[in-house]
Formats: sequence, C-alpha cells, structure tokens
Amino acid sequence: MNFSDRLKQAASQTEQMLDALLPSPVDVGRERSLFEAMRYATLGGGKRLRAFLVIQSSELFNVNKQSALRVAAAIECLHAYSLIHDDLPAMDDDNLRRGKPTVHIAYTEATAILAGDALQTLAFEILAHADTHPDPNVRISLIQALATGSGGAGMVGGQAIDLAAETAGADPLDMPEISRLQSLKTGALIEFSCLAGAILGNADKDQTNALKNYAEAIGLAFQIQDDILDVEGDEATTGKRVGKDEKAGKATFVSLLGLQEAKIKAQSLVKDANYAMNVFDHTNKTAAEPLRQVAEFVIARSS
Amino acid sequence: MNFSDRLKQAASQTEQMLDALLPSPVDVGRERSLFEAMRYATLGGGKRLRAFLVIQSSELFNVNKQSALRVAAAIECLHAYSLIHDDLPAMDDDNLRRGKPTVHIAYTEATAILAGDALQTLAFEILAHADTHPDPNVRISLIQALATGSGGAGMVGGQAIDLAAETAGADPLDMPEISRLQSLKTGALIEFSCLAGAILGNADKDQTNALKNYAEAIGLAFQIQDDILDVEGDEATTGKRVGKDEKAGKATFVSLLGLQEAKIKAQSLVKDANYAMNVFDHTNKTAAEPLRQVAEFVIARSS
Repeated sequence: MNFSDRLKQAASQTEQMLDALLPSPVDVGRERSLFEAMRYATLGGGKRLRAFLVIQSSELFNVNKQSALRVAAAIECLHAYSLIHDDLPAMDDDNLRRGKPTVHIAYTEATAILAGDALQTLAFEILAHADTHPDPNVRISLIQALATGSGGAGMVGGQAIDLAAETAGADPLDMPEISRLQSLKTGALIEFSCLAGAILGNADKDQTNALKNYAEAIGLAFQIQDDILDVEGDEATTGKRVGKDEKAGKATFVSLLGLQEAKIKAQSLVKDANYAMNVFDHTNKTAAEPLRQVAEFVIARSS
Repeated sequence: MNFSDRLKQAASQTEQMLDALLPSPVDVGRERSLFEAMRYATLGGGKRLRAFLVIQSSELFNVNKQSALRVAAAIECLHAYSLIHDDLPAMDDDNLRRGKPTVHIAYTEATAILAGDALQTLAFEILAHADTHPDPNVRISLIQALATGSGGAGMVGGQAIDLAAETAGADPLDMPEISRLQSLKTGALIEFSCLAGAILGNADKDQTNALKNYAEAIGLAFQIQDDILDVEGDEATTGKRVGKDEKAGKATFVSLLGLQEAKIKAQSLVKDANYAMNVFDHTNKTAAEPLRQVAEFVIARSS
C-alpha cells in the first residue's frame, strides 16, 4: 500500500472506531445537542495525524489492531476537545476549522465548552476500558502519559503560554520560549501518539527513546510547517484562517528564523526523525517505513 | 470528635493534599497565571462535601488515609473544574462563588477555560498515580467511575440538559426530567464520592448497593436544599447569587413541589440515607455515623 492510501485507511478506521465510541444522539433527552456537537467536532475531517502515529507506532511492536485503534480514537477525542476550546471567542476566536464552521458557531458557545469537556473525559474513559488492553498496568501507563501530555504541564500549559504572549504589552517570545511553547502545546500530544505503540507493545528503553526523539523532531517540524502555511498557505486549502499570526504580530518560527531558514530547519528535522527510526532496522524495518514517510509528509503538506 | 470538627478536619486535610498535588506557580514561565487560577479555584473554600464523602466512605472499609485523601483531592479538582466552567459568561454567567469573584472575573475568561481543562486532567492524573492505590485494577475502577460520572453520560450531560431547558421557548422541565437532570448534574459525582470508599476498600455487593442508595438519597436531598436556599437563602451566607432560578423562570424542585413539600421530601430522603447505612451495623457502625450525620447536614446547611 502506498503512503497516501495508508494514511486514508488509518483515517477511515479511526473514524469508524470514533463513531462506535462517541455517545449516540439518538433516543436521548435534552442533552442531544451536546452529543451532536461532540460528533460534529470529532468525525468527518482532519488529517488524523495523531491517530496515524498511534497506529504506525503500534505496528512496530505488532500490537493488536483493536488496541491501537482505541488509543487512536482516544487521542483524536483529546485533540478535538483542544481544538474546540482553542477556537472559542475568549481564546483564538476562530470561526473556521477543517473547512467547517467551528463548534461554537455551528452550535452555541456553551455547547462548545461542554462538548470539549466531555470529549476530554471520553478520551480517558476509552483508555481505561479493558478492551483497550488486557493488562491494567498498560492502561494506567497510557492514562498517565496522556494526562501528563495534555494537562497543565503539557498541552494546556502551552496554550496558556501562547495566550500570555498575545496579551497587549507582553514581550514577544524569544527562540527558547517559542521552542518550549511548541513542545508543550503541540509536541506533547505528538509524543504521546508515538509512544502509545511503545507502551502498548512493551518496548525496550532504546526503542522508547528512539520514538521520543522521532516524536520531538516531527513535532517541531510540524509546527514550523504550520507557521510556514500561515504565511504561504491559502484558506481554501488549509481549511482555516491564514495570515493570523503575522496580523497579530505574533512571534513564530518563521518570524524568528525567516522563511528560508525555517524551511531548512524543518528539512533537517525530518532527517533527525529518519535517523531515529534506524533502531528498528533489525527488528521491524517494514513497519518503520510509514513513520519515515509521515515525517516527509509533515513538511510537504499544504493543509 | 463532633461532626462539625470532623468536617473541618477533613476539609483541612483535603486542602493540604490539594496544595501538594496542584502545580506550583513558582519558577515557571508565562503559564504562571494558569497555575495561579487552578489554585485560586481549588484552594481556600467550599464545604468539601465530596471530599468528606470519600474520606468517610473509605473509613467504612479501613482504607489507608493517604489513598482516601488523594481520591478526595481528585474529586475536588473535578468539582472545581465544573464550577469554573459553569460560571463562565457563556454558561451561568456568575461573578460570585464561595464568596469570592469567579475565576473568569479574577483572571480572564481564557484562563478560566484552561484552568478548568487542566483541573479535569489533573483529577485523572491523581487517580492514575501508584500512590493512590497499589493495585492498578483499583485505580482503573476509580478512573472509570469518575469518567462515567463526570462525562456526557453524567455531570456534563446534566449541565447540557440544564442549559437546553433555559433556552428561550423551551418547555419547562417536568418532574421526571428534573429528577434526571439532578441525578446527572450533581448526583453522579456524589455517587462517585460515596462509592470511592467501596472501590478502594473492595466492598461486597450489598455494601456497594447500600452506598449507592445512600448517595442517591443525599444527592437528591442536596439538590432540593440548594433549590430551597435559592429561595430562602441570602448571598452573604451562601456565598453565591440567590433567587436566580426564580428570576430565570426555571423549574426547580421547589417550583414543582412547593416549598413545604420540598422540605418534607428532603427530610424523607435523609431517612432513606440513614436506612441504607444499617448494612454496616454489624461491621463498622462507628464509621457509618458521620455518613448519617452528613445526611442531616445536607438539608440543615444554610450555605
């Protein structure tokens, strides 16, 4: 299967799992619009990059497909919650996401807040369920990794730094700060996605470290490409507002490094990611291939 | 120790545990106000009713105190998150909570959303940690119970029903609907708190069912008393806005039953709660006493 088909297949399988795990809006009471909003935000779109990383890192260790898909669905619920809350008027105030009106536009602001809240809970609920892995220690490890990556010391902390930097009168972020912001806001969940396979598959220390290095490289490359797309992309292709960082006078990897340097940096990170995968050459080289390809994809994508 | 001192001691021990578990706002970067807001919302106030129920249900089964206090802290983090989000302008738009400005007033709306988000994550993180209980199956059970009670099928679902009923033109809730709303919005977490001891202490089926019945009775009594206080209470004592349900034309147990009937119903529920505790007469009657007292307290409280 070529990379593009593989990506599509993973997205479609994740979508199916999400559909099965999300609460049904049929035959419920007045909370129906909550469940509809949860589905609206989670189904039918997105690159499913995080899900793909979970599935492919799981293949490295021949993890049961059902386990991998449940964790893929959990991370996509967590990711969807973060997007819903980030898009709120009090936060980034965005009205377009994945080419559709954002949740607070399509529903109400209150429903958007609650849908995000319930999707976070659902992510942990999915991981805790026995169907995710027979060993409770493995489920606990997944829950701990997701909590660390997504809470105040991870994704939400990164979002707080981002907002603080946007406050009127705040000093612009410098390079160490913007690197830390990225590693928390987007890097932490990408790391979780890459480590999920290692946790599910009981990886050894070298393999886990390799996946950590890989995740760090593609996470940073992903953010740099996002910053590049905010300058070079167009709304129709990216499915979200562009040019907003420059308009907000926000420091980004592009504003700090310059467009050319940013592209060079991203390419060098893809090499790092490739290098990290060498550890699987003698155990499961074939399964590492899609992870090498996704690294290339991260900086080649136009949306 | 008398009941009032016992309540105070539990609150103070929970406070200490929360202080130890919440991230420190010292020596951090620009996310400092996030950590400050998490502490502002969680420390220094509240009756700690849920924490008390965890601690006392744990005493029924002679659970290690450290375990009980960690779960008590987790449920208070979850509760604090729900209050922060409920108070937001897009939700109940409240500016007073526990006698202090609400989080979005004291900080910003964005910080309030993020602080709530991170407190939810922290609740699951605390439960997942090995210090909470040596057996991973017990931790998984706690996580599952909290997720079920707090997500779309529990607390958040209840809040969604509450908001839907407030929409202009919506039919007022009838008695079955308002009972379901209560059992989801506030009942589910009170049930979690009462069952926490049973989970930590590996209770048998009869004991678990007794605690479920007890929780159901005091949860409903608690809500009825809340509705009574919204009519009869004053802001200085309750520490929050009063009269808001009537002003909003909202159906409550008081509006549906009348004040007198509501009080009779609450008293009858306290009897049910007391009755449920009889199952512990031959095993741990002394430890059941504070749970009998808290049932009385729930309808006697003025805040």
